[in-house]
Amino acid sequence: MTTRLLSESPNVVTVGVDLFERTLRDQGVDVTAVDWRPPTVDAGVLAAVAEGGATAANVVAFDRLVAAEPHWVGIATARDAVGLETGQFLHAGPPVTWERASGPMRGALVAGMLFEGMADTPEQAMALGEAGDLELAPCHGVATVGPMAGVVSPSMPMFDVVNDAFGNHAWCTLNEGLGKVQRYGAYGDEVIERLGWMRDVLGPALADAIAVHGPLDLRTVIANALQMGDELHNRNRAATSLFVREMMPSLLATGRASGELADVAAFVNGNDHFFLNLVMPAAKAATDPCRDVEGSSMVVAMARNGTDFGIQVSGTGDEWFTAPAEVPDGLFLGDYTAADANPDIGDSTITETAGVGGFAMAAAPAIVKFIGGEVADALAATQSMYGITLGEHPAYQVPILDFRGTPTGIDVVRIVRTGVVPFVNTGIAGKVAGTGQVGAGLVSPPMEVFTAAVEALAARAAAVPVA
Amino acid sequence: MTTRLLSESPNVVTVGVDLFERTLRDQGVDVTAVDWRPPTVDAGVLAAVAEGGATAANVVAFDRLVAAEPHWVGIATARDAVGLETGQFLHAGPPVTWERASGPMRGALVAGMLFEGMADTPEQAMALGEAGDLELAPCHGVATVGPMAGVVSPSMPMFDVVNDAFGNHAWCTLNEGLGKVQRYGAYGDEVIERLGWMRDVLGPALADAIAVHGPLDLRTVIANALQMGDELHNRNRAATSLFVREMMPSLLATGRASGELADVAAFVNGNDHFFLNLVMPAAKAATDPCRDVEGSSMVVAMARNGTDFGIQVSGTGDEWFTAPAEVPDGLFLGDYTAADANPDIGDSTITETAGVGGFAMAAAPAIVKFIGGEVADALAATQSMYGITLGEHPAYQVPILDFRGTPTGIDVVRIVRTGVVPFVNTGIAGKVAGTGQVGAGLVSPPMEVFTAAVEALAARAAAVPVA
Repeated sequence: MTTRLLSESPNVVTVGVDLFERTLRDQGVDVTAVDWRPPTVDAGVLAAVAEGGATAANVVAFDRLVAAEPHWVGIATARDAVGLETGQFLHAGPPVTWERASGPMRGALVAGMLFEGMADTPEQAMALGEAGDLELAPCHGVATVGPMAGVVSPSMPMFDVVNDAFGNHAWCTLNEGLGKVQRYGAYGDEVIERLGWMRDVLGPALADAIAVHGPLDLRTVIANALQMGDELHNRNRAATSLFVREMMPSLLATGRASGELADVAAFVNGNDHFFLNLVMPAAKAATDPCRDVEGSSMVVAMARNGTDFGIQVSGTGDEWFTAPAEVPDGLFLGDYTAADANPDIGDSTITETAGVGGFAMAAAPAIVKFIGGEVADALAATQSMYGITLGEHPAYQVPILDFRGTPTGIDVVRIVRTGVVPFVNTGIAGKVAGTGQVGAGLVSPPMEVFTAAVEALAARAAAVPVA
Repeated sequence: MTTRLLSESPNVVTVGVDLFERTLRDQGVDVTAVDWRPPTVDAGVLAAVAEGGATAANVVAFDRLVAAEPHWVGIATARDAVGLETGQFLHAGPPVTWERASGPMRGALVAGMLFEGMADTPEQAMALGEAGDLELAPCHGVATVGPMAGVVSPSMPMFDVVNDAFGNHAWCTLNEGLGKVQRYGAYGDEVIERLGWMRDVLGPALADAIAVHGPLDLRTVIANALQMGDELHNRNRAATSLFVREMMPSLLATGRASGELADVAAFVNGNDHFFLNLVMPAAKAATDPCRDVEGSSMVVAMARNGTDFGIQVSGTGDEWFTAPAEVPDGLFLGDYTAADANPDIGDSTITETAGVGGFAMAAAPAIVKFIGGEVADALAATQSMYGITLGEHPAYQVPILDFRGTPTGIDVVRIVRTGVVPFVNTGIAGKVAGTGQVGAGLVSPPMEVFTAAVEALAARAAAVPVA
């Protein structure tokens, strides 16, 4: 098992030697140290993982990941797609109870109860939660992903995505837009009304449109969007635009009433993030077949419930490795500040898990206007991720890096050896239930989850005892 | 009058000092010489232009250029827009006669005659051309621009663009798509049929849509597209996508038959270059108010008719400075080669004249897959254009260059002082009439036209005799 961050230097944008020379002069010739910390587990543990066959296993896992051919094929309610029943709710991240749930998670559950007619008022819904009457389970356990709180109730329509290379499905709810929306923990009347319109109009219209169109190749849309300034997590403007261009003729051909079509077109057009909810199941459909490769140290899920940050690793089955979620930093909407921010929340880190999002920041320099920072940070973010990933994605390329593939396949061993954690873009939810979105920015996963995963891999390899 | 190329170093993409250091080591530490040739006119001529007040005049011209607020407001036939009558044709570039017209220019005129019902067969049309029965005039003379051959006949619908800052209009025909199309000199039945559909269906549908929508702010679309990987000449995928997203709801609201709407949507969607024909009149509307600033050495038109390359300069009125057009080099379609290529043709260099196109290549690294070359070439192209332009566009920014404004306002004095000519993206037409498009690539304007313009400015300054 070798690591690459210290043995290989990253690619660089080449503008001509004269320009680099001047920059060096301007900035002084001292070479900045690579971001590196001592390994967080001892050498014996790392050796045990290597002896457990991680390298060969990782080749298998990585090859499955990049072989994915995700296609959007239809729309299904959570009831039909994954058998969700009244009183059952899916949520983002690792398992969590009502007692430990954060404000936005509780708020999203309240919205779900109101939407499903389980309660008439937020107070009634809160009481149901307090009484322990809800059955909660992570989205990830049933081939589903949910942005932010990720709360899915039985009547919600979901995108149905199939990975043609392996035949597995993945699902995700439809994007509600920004501001006061359920996934950020808001539950006002306009939130419930919008969810109803999505169930009654948007979902059925999209279902008809995709039936007319036939399966939509998401890998191609994502690859094109990376060449158009998206990183596919916090910036989906190009992908959403390509989606609209591609689907609009089919939507017109559904024969639905023109007023309804105009509403649907206006709703999708009004939200540059609409396509995120197709990137997420595309990524989930790609990562699920990589599970359960014995010995593999590749991350197959990375997700947050607003209380805990958790990962699942290919070689350790369905076990979640968790630690308290950090509070993201970034740019805040209106009068909100960092004091209003909830800890990190959502399954959208499935994008980074599949080689886009924060890992593809170099493709999206304009994103710094949304999440803060400098253009150089966006380039450096992608560069640094090559050190903790197993390879480069053959289809997802970054033009400015001479079409180098995005860093793909997060390796927990490389993370503990280098001390470099995955780079994550994220939306920021208000910590008080009912608030909604307060900003967007960046967050660092806690190192403990990666350390714990490496120790579990070592234990399974049965070569050394767990520390 | 000062120049900047030699006194100021260009900006550079900064990825971190450590990366630059390695690149320098990899490539050797010799500094590559700046592309520079001795001035093509003597110092006395340059001094005369400076004494003629070029610096102050250029501030006026540049400020007008970047103050432009182009909006698409409607559709009008060339007959209604510019008073074109049967037998009259507009064409791209400086003035040209049938005798001197290239294959694609003649082919496009043949298509125009067939489309207008002036001839029943290509042979009859050719005979009309030979007989000198056509009245030809440059598009540029009547606030119009035409891509490639740029042949406009009276019945053709045109985009009507208004520059809100100055109240002037500019017009451009609608984009036909790629391959065998009139503007590349094709005149087969499918070409004439498509022109008829554009007149009878596409034009009226777009006219209704823009009436529903109200004026479309082209400056904003262009600024957004630059942040999405377009350079707005040979790559308009993002701009076309944004256009479709923005206009589709209004198109739906026109109440036109759904089959017709589906045809229009499919036609626009099928052509990533559709928006070019809105960038061009936006650029024309921006440059026209910059004309006739006495003493200004800023280029206000740069255009080719397939035989000659010509420019017009603010301080020299409507005079064209021309020289034989070069043959572009790039990537060729199918079995075509450089031997099939016609010399440079089209008014689309109005994009470079207004600070986008080849001047914004750094915003569009993915374009190298369409026109050839390396990503570093795209960055270097924009960098080098800062040396021959008067300033940076305040709205048109390049994210990867830390949101630096595009190099804008081509200065003939800077060109002759540095020997650096404008960087031009272009489509490539087949040289035989009727062929259509054979490729896309890059072309260098002939230095003589800039030298001639500087000498004319000097003569007008009346301080030195023309050489």
